[in-house]
Amino acid sequence: MTTNPVLYSELHSAWAEASADDRMSRFKALPLADAQEFFRELSTRHQYEIIANLPEREQTVWLRLLDPDDAADLLQEAPSGDRERLLTLLDDNTRDDVQALLKYREDVAGGLMSPRFARLRPDMTVSEALTYVRKQALGATETVYTVYVLDSEQHLLGVTSLRTLFASEPQQLISDIMRTNVVTASEQADQEALSRLFAEHDLIAIPIVDAENRMKGIVTIDDIVDVVQEEATEDIQKMGGSEALGAPYLEISFGRMIRKRAGWLTVLFLGEMLTANAMGQFEDEIAKAVVLALFIPLIISSGGNAGSQASTLVIRAMALGELRLTDWWRVMRRELLTGLVLGSILGAIGLGRVVIWESMFHTYGQHYWLIGLTVGLSLIGIVLWGTLAGSLLPFILRRVGFDPASASTPFVATLVDVTGIVIYFSVASLLLKGTLL
Amino acid sequence: MTTNPVLYSELHSAWAEASADDRMSRFKALPLADAQEFFRELSTRHQYEIIANLPEREQTVWLRLLDPDDAADLLQEAPSGDRERLLTLLDDNTRDDVQALLKYREDVAGGLMSPRFARLRPDMTVSEALTYVRKQALGATETVYTVYVLDSEQHLLGVTSLRTLFASEPQQLISDIMRTNVVTASEQADQEALSRLFAEHDLIAIPIVDAENRMKGIVTIDDIVDVVQEEATEDIQKMGGSEALGAPYLEISFGRMIRKRAGWLTVLFLGEMLTANAMGQFEDEIAKAVVLALFIPLIISSGGNAGSQASTLVIRAMALGELRLTDWWRVMRRELLTGLVLGSILGAIGLGRVVIWESMFHTYGQHYWLIGLTVGLSLIGIVLWGTLAGSLLPFILRRVGFDPASASTPFVATLVDVTGIVIYFSVASLLLKGTLL
Repeated sequence: MTTNPVLYSELHSAWAEASADDRMSRFKALPLADAQEFFRELSTRHQYEIIANLPEREQTVWLRLLDPDDAADLLQEAPSGDRERLLTLLDDNTRDDVQALLKYREDVAGGLMSPRFARLRPDMTVSEALTYVRKQALGATETVYTVYVLDSEQHLLGVTSLRTLFASEPQQLISDIMRTNVVTASEQADQEALSRLFAEHDLIAIPIVDAENRMKGIVTIDDIVDVVQEEATEDIQKMGGSEALGAPYLEISFGRMIRKRAGWLTVLFLGEMLTANAMGQFEDEIAKAVVLALFIPLIISSGGNAGSQASTLVIRAMALGELRLTDWWRVMRRELLTGLVLGSILGAIGLGRVVIWESMFHTYGQHYWLIGLTVGLSLIGIVLWGTLAGSLLPFILRRVGFDPASASTPFVATLVDVTGIVIYFSVASLLLKGTLL
Repeated sequence: MTTNPVLYSELHSAWAEASADDRMSRFKALPLADAQEFFRELSTRHQYEIIANLPEREQTVWLRLLDPDDAADLLQEAPSGDRERLLTLLDDNTRDDVQALLKYREDVAGGLMSPRFARLRPDMTVSEALTYVRKQALGATETVYTVYVLDSEQHLLGVTSLRTLFASEPQQLISDIMRTNVVTASEQADQEALSRLFAEHDLIAIPIVDAENRMKGIVTIDDIVDVVQEEATEDIQKMGGSEALGAPYLEISFGRMIRKRAGWLTVLFLGEMLTANAMGQFEDEIAKAVVLALFIPLIISSGGNAGSQASTLVIRAMALGELRLTDWWRVMRRELLTGLVLGSILGAIGLGRVVIWESMFHTYGQHYWLIGLTVGLSLIGIVLWGTLAGSLLPFILRRVGFDPASASTPFVATLVDVTGIVIYFSVASLLLKGTLL
């Protein structure tokens, strides 16, 4: 290979930032062997960009470099009009594989798997198996390091590794050395569940089987790294209060970016409008004691912050499989206590703030203790309420079939703001009736 | 193997939820071969729990099952007093390896790598190499599927795979078939940078080299899946406004959970107290026009929401390596325009809200148009400011050496709340002077 490894590595990281024209000319400048390897490593989006900018004869060459699962991903990236034409460029075998893969949703095991796995029969000897695996290594098999043992009807009987084959006596039977205790997943398994299987079992590949335990393909761990990143990105973007962008920040078009962000922002704004209504209910109280208005942002934001913490922790624990729906009551009990403790801490600081300010600046008048107590007690109530609402909301969303990550920080904050105002003025009415109100 | 695979799989997922006693008795009930495999797959925390609950003679057996990198992780999980004793239980070779690994921080390449990789000399023939790799496969090598070519001083010359060896002629020289264009990382490389290398280059393993290009070990992709999950979890928890928990939600002790959450909540509360000061500056205005107070929560929360979106998108793009420090100006230009558009949308709705309410309920008096304009224009300003502050803050934090994920949603909201009040009342003074104020 002729390219300097350092430059090659930089090419990768500079790819997204270059202009499309720049990318094409850089790509064409690479020596062929480097270009092939580079092309295979590129993201699907950038692979399609290159294909789309080449004449059809060259498209065939580059498309045929890809494994069926990667080719299927590329076709899904292409506009639907172009998909059929690209399919005809593939060789017959790959086309069949790709068409089978395209029937699955992109985010289930069936859509991630490669149908090209290494296989053995249980009645082979180790020495026969090694020859057979070696033959498969020369073909287009995804990995030959994990080898699956199938009967004549493709039922999965067991699994072994090239390494075990190496370590076994040549005349041993595969059925004697294979592991039958195999972790499998169904074609419809969600990619998030799949990534948890990989993490729990420290696996390199998972065989995908149908309902009759017939093996359909394998998902390898390098595909799962992408899935894990992608799922985390989606969750993070939703939790920040926008739709998942679905493209890198600098690459998404301005119009699409606005649409992804304006939707939730508008919904939250409409929800937050209720605060104006809630405040309207207490207009007389504010007019009588303007001092009450001063603490509103402080108090409602504290509820929102406490709620953000709780919902974030619960959403992430759900995504990692640490929490299930049935755990909601355990979480509630925990957050009830947490909310009380956190609320008491903030309440004490809030009360202290009023008392200290009064002693320094004499701004709150003779009833400053009552004002301080109103602030302190409201904080306990609002932080408690924020914590409970924030931790319960992801459970409710999942229960009714939504993504728990939609319980975004801004969503929880909005929910808590409205109720926070009501809690604050209710406490104020109780404590200040006859004095300030 | 005797265990039913389904039960075995369930055992894994039920592990975290069982009590410690329950876990030990379930573990002891497993047939030995299953127990060994299960033990190797467990998280470091749970591996240590089992070790800690066994008599010393058995500790030796289980500890020696682990590869050096996993053993090093386990020792880091152990209280420092127990670490020396556990080290003495290892065999001499492993102890040396583990001690070398313990010198590195857990989150850099050196702390993740395994020193047991398969190696070849460049002047071997393919047939010699296959015999040599096979011998290494019988030992404790981490993977034999990627093989590194080193000179006599351990300098990394190239890389090849078992598969390439299979596909080559027996008399070919390794130096002729090896790839010299190798992606490497230094021992001090951060695990987040490492995971990006894996993603960019679709790798199974990365060789770790010192400053003289001498190979020290390999990091394999199965370790990276854990890293990616862990980094995403930390970022998400920080972005939700608490410290990273560092343990599963249901397993962390109540006291530790409170400490992780109370710190930031208190800091945010102290920051948010400035809203009371800011409001205090406008007490006279509120007294004159109580109607102004009604829109405060609506207006400041919109700035916070817009800021949350922006900071979340920027933080994630930074973590994925899509944005670097030098991109700050491109992001600013983009967010300036985004903020203006989003602010105009919310401003128009806000103005509409006031006008429609007035026509229905006649609550805002004769100057309702001016009130509506105050709300609408403030929204444009505050959303724009929130968007800019939210997207700039992660850059500033990274520039001064902090984790950009600390620009949490609540942090941005707090920052924007205080300035939002000032913007709102400034617009109000301008528009309402002589009428309501």
